[in-house]
Amino acid sequence: MERVAIIDMGSNSIRFIVMQVADNKSYHLEYQQKEAIRLGRGMSETGKLNPEGVERALACLHVYKHMMEVMQVTKCIAVATAAARNASDGEAFIERIKQETGIEIEVISGEREAYLGYLGVVNTIDERNYVQFDLGGASIEVSLVRDRKIVESVSVPIGAVTVTDAFNLGDKVTPAAIERCCAFVRRKYEEMIPWAEGLNLPVIGVGGTVRNLAKMDQAQTNYQLSRIHNYIIPRRRFEETYTSIIKSNLSSRKRMKGLSSERADLIVAGAIIINTLMEFTGGQNIIVSGCGLRDGVFFEYYGETYGYGDGYKGPIIPDVLQESVHNYLLSADRRMEHLERVRTLALSLFDQLKRSHGGTRRDRSLLEVAAWLHDSGKVVNYYDHARHSAFIIAHAPLYGMRQLEQLRAAFIAGFHHGISNKIMRAYRYGMMLTPEDWKKVRRLSLLLALAEASDVTYEGVVRRIDVADDEEAVVLSLRGKKGEDHSAAEFEMKSYCKQFKKEYGKPLIIMWQKG
Amino acid sequence: MERVAIIDMGSNSIRFIVMQVADNKSYHLEYQQKEAIRLGRGMSETGKLNPEGVERALACLHVYKHMMEVMQVTKCIAVATAAARNASDGEAFIERIKQETGIEIEVISGEREAYLGYLGVVNTIDERNYVQFDLGGASIEVSLVRDRKIVESVSVPIGAVTVTDAFNLGDKVTPAAIERCCAFVRRKYEEMIPWAEGLNLPVIGVGGTVRNLAKMDQAQTNYQLSRIHNYIIPRRRFEETYTSIIKSNLSSRKRMKGLSSERADLIVAGAIIINTLMEFTGGQNIIVSGCGLRDGVFFEYYGETYGYGDGYKGPIIPDVLQESVHNYLLSADRRMEHLERVRTLALSLFDQLKRSHGGTRRDRSLLEVAAWLHDSGKVVNYYDHARHSAFIIAHAPLYGMRQLEQLRAAFIAGFHHGISNKIMRAYRYGMMLTPEDWKKVRRLSLLLALAEASDVTYEGVVRRIDVADDEEAVVLSLRGKKGEDHSAAEFEMKSYCKQFKKEYGKPLIIMWQKG
Repeated sequence: MERVAIIDMGSNSIRFIVMQVADNKSYHLEYQQKEAIRLGRGMSETGKLNPEGVERALACLHVYKHMMEVMQVTKCIAVATAAARNASDGEAFIERIKQETGIEIEVISGEREAYLGYLGVVNTIDERNYVQFDLGGASIEVSLVRDRKIVESVSVPIGAVTVTDAFNLGDKVTPAAIERCCAFVRRKYEEMIPWAEGLNLPVIGVGGTVRNLAKMDQAQTNYQLSRIHNYIIPRRRFEETYTSIIKSNLSSRKRMKGLSSERADLIVAGAIIINTLMEFTGGQNIIVSGCGLRDGVFFEYYGETYGYGDGYKGPIIPDVLQESVHNYLLSADRRMEHLERVRTLALSLFDQLKRSHGGTRRDRSLLEVAAWLHDSGKVVNYYDHARHSAFIIAHAPLYGMRQLEQLRAAFIAGFHHGISNKIMRAYRYGMMLTPEDWKKVRRLSLLLALAEASDVTYEGVVRRIDVADDEEAVVLSLRGKKGEDHSAAEFEMKSYCKQFKKEYGKPLIIMWQKG
Repeated sequence: MERVAIIDMGSNSIRFIVMQVADNKSYHLEYQQKEAIRLGRGMSETGKLNPEGVERALACLHVYKHMMEVMQVTKCIAVATAAARNASDGEAFIERIKQETGIEIEVISGEREAYLGYLGVVNTIDERNYVQFDLGGASIEVSLVRDRKIVESVSVPIGAVTVTDAFNLGDKVTPAAIERCCAFVRRKYEEMIPWAEGLNLPVIGVGGTVRNLAKMDQAQTNYQLSRIHNYIIPRRRFEETYTSIIKSNLSSRKRMKGLSSERADLIVAGAIIINTLMEFTGGQNIIVSGCGLRDGVFFEYYGETYGYGDGYKGPIIPDVLQESVHNYLLSADRRMEHLERVRTLALSLFDQLKRSHGGTRRDRSLLEVAAWLHDSGKVVNYYDHARHSAFIIAHAPLYGMRQLEQLRAAFIAGFHHGISNKIMRAYRYGMMLTPEDWKKVRRLSLLLALAEASDVTYEGVVRRIDVADDEEAVVLSLRGKKGEDHSAAEFEMKSYCKQFKKEYGKPLIIMWQKG
């Protein structure tokens, strides 16, 4: 068994995944984190990395380093793209990361970036001929793929973050600004990717901007599956979305269905870059890929180390569909110790917070079921596994619960990464619970989320939580072994303070108990 | 690892389950079959077993014997209840079964039947005090449970089959006949279970009749979960259903929502027996149990052999909820060879029937995905696993399919036990497919169902299928090794002839190729 960590430090966000390769050579995503660091913000003026972005990136990398040790990662492949590549202080930053965290990050060329993104797509979408783009914070990689081979690829140094800054598109935008921006982007394309003009091929898009455009399209068309990879946005519908985006200011964009509020500032520049590319290439539809550079990094490593199918070694999977089905058949995931710790802490929180949540002995049992099975959905898919756990708990041969109790346990587990009613819309039986049931579910699910967050590193750093359940506030004092690093757990737990206040009507204060 | 087969030969139906106990002592249902044999039909007049029922039972037992060998079952526990117990030729029939199949069936007493049914319920429903009944074809076992212990239990020799016969309740029923029947049933209760009168406890019901009443109630209330175990029918709603049942004749009962057409004849007697019991005991609600005698047989064996929880040995699980959650966490199920065979035969059928189904190369790939993953839903629950496989395929990290293709693959797998649109109602994304898509899905799913049926015994008896795709009919010639028993596969495959004709517009003829 091997664990491969992949870090992708972009201009807008940093991502960390851990892939497990089992003894039977099947592989699956075991862990992932993502943070918006905005390393490239302001770079078009200063030519330097954003100072706050640098600090955020370092904080994340410390956590990732720690996670790699905890998870016994045997191989780490870390890459940095446009921001680190283009900034005058990029090299120094990479050196500082190495000094402070020990992580060696390779700053990859635009061409290699495009190639890895291509590997992420060619190995997960079954198309032979297409134009691919990967729009990041500071660059867009555009590639031409013919017969599954990459024949052209260029990194164009315009990205959602840099173009937003350069044309001041973050809030209200004037038609004149739009026009100037479009002309600028088009000139860049003419200059750098002349081969792409009028190709009239399907366009496959990678990156946060296009994923978000897909979510907006799904919200508008009342699409029933909450899945992004391989979703198709028809050109005409894309243009409608584009038009409504560029006509709105920041606050009305924040209210647009499907648009993440933390991307509402960057979406104008992103949509312009994509729309101009569609016009330039003459593509009819956008196929959205949820897989990109980091998947490409894995597929390259895995293919060269283990090979695909019958003895073939190399980075490109001969038959994407076959490979993923076979691999899925062979994968599984379980961590009993983590489950035991999460259960114990969730029940401890329940017992100490009784006065505030008002749960009964029976509710305690349901919370326990949810805690034991909160990760069971990983067998379906790591992504959205909380939601899949809810499905599994609702249908598994579990005994000793009334049906509506089983549903409550299911939904508590479904919210173990925080409360999101939206995420439950796929399950019609959500409507079977009363508002009172839902209130309980939400309160208890936060206890599970806090317990899960306390073991986010799977190493049990939080041994005990003492609760002071006061009229005015709830204070959690975390205890563990002296000298152990608990920052990741504390950070994760604090992310639920806002939801806690909403559900319990008083603030949550989390502190580490010294000594 | 151990496999335990359990056979329960009742007066109405015969059931066969195989439970696997893994090396880690976790257990799960691995296989099940059920057939309506109606052994008790006509017994109230003749005092003897129904002759056709006897032959049907023997045919089933031959199949079960075969399955036990194939699955390497190490332990078989077979029991027979009221029909075999009460018929004058019951003993001789048991002897004949032993001679012809080698299966030794124990005819259990009414008291033991009640006890085993009690074990099935007390180990799967978390109630302490209740009246339990198990209504079969020729008897109803009534027990009183206090503090999870059985304190009374009697087998009353009235059942859905025998009472239907005795009072001629199969089709149209007169108020006078109902009245006579109710009075008869009530007298039996007064005589045999006087301790049950006016207990005013919850009533837990086991058996096909009460399961079907639950389905009717779910259909009437538009209940969203298709799950029976631990469903509650409030007394008042039960009475409404009861009233509409006894007022209808056979053909209008057959149209009642939720009522299985093969039970439409027996439901009047069944409903009378239950309603009279509710009046007699004063119970307010009926809690429906999907677990009963055969589960009880397993729990008794397992508890005494392996024990539950921390070193406790005995038939009663100390904590039902804990036990089932822990057990579920430890269970899994996979049979690669079976999957490989089903895939190969499904694709062979696809290739040979191209002219009739009109599927493309792409459809062939989707059928292949469905074949590989058709059993993946077992990880959720053996029961309804086809439907759960659909859920898993729709959400798994499978690559190389468009989203709507993935849905089509999902639904093909979802129908691998035959087409049932009803069963898909829990998934809102069913509506995303066009009627044309659905037509394809249904046609291809039947190929998968046939391939799966050909390996129903998991031993690969059908090595090859030759298809003659004629204008007038489709003929499948099955080939295998000489001397191997292929009757179970042939029987299963033939069960899809009717659906095939509907979807393909011409009859399906299945024959075994000699030599």
